[in-house]
Amino acid sequence: MADAAGLDDTVGRLGEKAVLARVLDALRGSSRAVVGPGDDAAVLAAPGGRVVVSTDTLVHGPDFRLAWSSGYDLGWKAAAVNLADIAAMGAAPVALFVALALPDATSVSFVEDLARGLRDACDALAPGCAVEGGDLTASDVLTIAVTAIGVPQGTPAVLRSGARPGDVLAVAGELGPAARGLALLFERFRDAAGVPIAVDVEALTAPERADLSAQLRPSPPIGLGIVAARAGATAMMDVSDGLLLDATRLAEASGVTLDLDLDLGPDLDDAALRGGEDHALLACFPRGAALPTGFVPIGRAEERAGAPVTIAGSPVTGHLGWDPHQDWDAGRG
Amino acid sequence: MADAAGLDDTVGRLGEKAVLARVLDALRGSSRAVVGPGDDAAVLAAPGGRVVVSTDTLVHGPDFRLAWSSGYDLGWKAAAVNLADIAAMGAAPVALFVALALPDATSVSFVEDLARGLRDACDALAPGCAVEGGDLTASDVLTIAVTAIGVPQGTPAVLRSGARPGDVLAVAGELGPAARGLALLFERFRDAAGVPIAVDVEALTAPERADLSAQLRPSPPIGLGIVAARAGATAMMDVSDGLLLDATRLAEASGVTLDLDLDLGPDLDDAALRGGEDHALLACFPRGAALPTGFVPIGRAEERAGAPVTIAGSPVTGHLGWDPHQDWDAGRG
Repeated sequence: MADAAGLDDTVGRLGEKAVLARVLDALRGSSRAVVGPGDDAAVLAAPGGRVVVSTDTLVHGPDFRLAWSSGYDLGWKAAAVNLADIAAMGAAPVALFVALALPDATSVSFVEDLARGLRDACDALAPGCAVEGGDLTASDVLTIAVTAIGVPQGTPAVLRSGARPGDVLAVAGELGPAARGLALLFERFRDAAGVPIAVDVEALTAPERADLSAQLRPSPPIGLGIVAARAGATAMMDVSDGLLLDATRLAEASGVTLDLDLDLGPDLDDAALRGGEDHALLACFPRGAALPTGFVPIGRAEERAGAPVTIAGSPVTGHLGWDPHQDWDAGRG
Repeated sequence: MADAAGLDDTVGRLGEKAVLARVLDALRGSSRAVVGPGDDAAVLAAPGGRVVVSTDTLVHGPDFRLAWSSGYDLGWKAAAVNLADIAAMGAAPVALFVALALPDATSVSFVEDLARGLRDACDALAPGCAVEGGDLTASDVLTIAVTAIGVPQGTPAVLRSGARPGDVLAVAGELGPAARGLALLFERFRDAAGVPIAVDVEALTAPERADLSAQLRPSPPIGLGIVAARAGATAMMDVSDGLLLDATRLAEASGVTLDLDLDLGPDLDDAALRGGEDHALLACFPRGAALPTGFVPIGRAEERAGAPVTIAGSPVTGHLGWDPHQDWDAGRG
């Protein structure tokens, strides 16, 4: 955001109308709605007459640090995490609505960069989806609240509550890289006082760079949500807060026990089990059904007996995942 | 939020899951969705296959002060302003999605109160609409981002851009009370240092109490949006930031000049012209059409000539309305 030439203005100096015009400019051409941004509301066509809707927020401090994330990164991530919620219902994302609360000192180029990140993540992860509306307001804390709208593709929505004993538990997408990326940031890119500092990408190995990218610009397998719904998935959700914590939520919603088998295939280390933010898709499929390409088995659903989640029959313990109200250290930077 | 008996906990101590359970409890029974809160997304039926979507955010500081607004007030207002955006499209609101960013020290009873305010505003202003999903996260600044979904009722959505020369300009709902209520708060309920203090309702006259209520718990005429669409409204929007500013937006979107006639009927004083937050509906109707009950004429649309908005032919000047990035004094309290 350095701007020696003085060409970059701040949100506070430019005002709402001019900032909005810049944002719409960055999004230009991407709207696919019947009526896109600019009116009181957008109008979407909902083929089949059902829509799925989800909302998720990124807050400066608990959810990101500006020393580590660019505007583009934040736009990308805000889109990706919301697209993943729609994918987890087995639906195709069709529109995002973005409420931005911005400190007055925010540079306008940062906001434009954020808009481009939103647009590019939609294009890359869910072609056909675009930002169709939003809201700008002032706040001391940069906050990005996104609401995503999706349309089922000829199947019912896939809920968390449909898993049945005997179902195969499977996952699509990565587990672990985003949490490793976050650990890398906390361990290597803070000063002596613990304050976040800029990332020196040159100092990272190729695998470290991949982990960092997974944390800052996650790429969940959005299209596989529809594929899973068509393949008969009985329950599905995205893994946002940690596999063990999210599997617990799915098990509780379905009234089953989910037993993980660490020998089945993917390497489920601690980052994979307890780390969040990869937004992989966790789904159950009927026993004997062919798993769709992209899903790998990691366990199965059983009659509920005691703990909601077990590993080889033993209840899981300890810190299962992320709770913003209990885990955030109140730092920002 | 005083709690001598220690029965009221904070968000930080209770954690996300327990807070969410309390919120869902406060909303119990109000969901009308195919799938309501609790899954990755809600599923809504969209009769006719079109949905309208809008988002609007309340931020502690520029949008409200906690010395003046209760949790219930904030929930009510967050619902009302978003319902008004859907009404302004001529559609019926069917669902709200609420992203709450909460400081850890927020009391849980405040959050429950906020949920009840959301529920009651939906019931009172738009029966059939309910909170169908949302998101909880931590932030130093209390932020309420609401996304509203609506369904047109057999008419096309009414846009800002459809006004034509000769149309009658009309308004439904009040203009001025919310701005007078805000002025009352700033003038009478701040201490010597300008810090907001609790409102002493006993010290207010009945008209002052009505103004305060209009500011804290606005009641826009939501149902009249659908009525206007059925009556052939050519353009419509809600007045959120001030009549002159919002009329300018409608005039610019439609490519017309809107000329106000202060002798037509309602008393349009400075609060009515330049004050926002009543969320009245501003609409254009074809010349000669019968205005639906609830709408009163305030002017007409003309060929665009110079200024977008005039009063008896003279361009309006000065501060037309509210811009959060330029008008907020950075205070909170």
